[in-house]
Amino acid sequence: MCESNVYLKDGENEVMIMESVDTIVPCENGLNLMDIMGRQLFVPAKIKGMTLLNHRIILEKLT
Amino acid sequence: MCESNVYLKDGENEVMIMESVDTIVPCENGLNLMDIMGRQLFVPAKIKGMTLLNHRIILEKLT
Repeated sequence: MCESNVYLKDGENEVMIMESVDTIVPCENGLNLMDIMGRQLFVPAKIKGMTLLNHRIILEKLT
Repeated sequence: MCESNVYLKDGENEVMIMESVDTIVPCENGLNLMDIMGRQLFVPAKIKGMTLLNHRIILEKLT
């Protein structure tokens, strides 16, 4: 399966906030995430980078 | 392999601009893409949405 884990950058750390994410849809104030089970999460953040082969998507908080 | 294909929205159409993308890094004026072969592409666009299980990442041009 090709879902990714989503991490939020907090200083030097990257904290996983959601596993097995399928869809990401940016909206005005952040990102709407949905995992493969259909669970949804809104995060006031933007995408900092992703490496899909490593299943990693890194977010950073919106300032 | 869990790379995605990247499409640029052009009106009602979605045109594939890069296959087998591994990494995406947003920068000031757009996105830097790199595929699994290490080829790089800069696109003056932002992420409109992605469905990783479908290997689809949709971009839209920056206005």
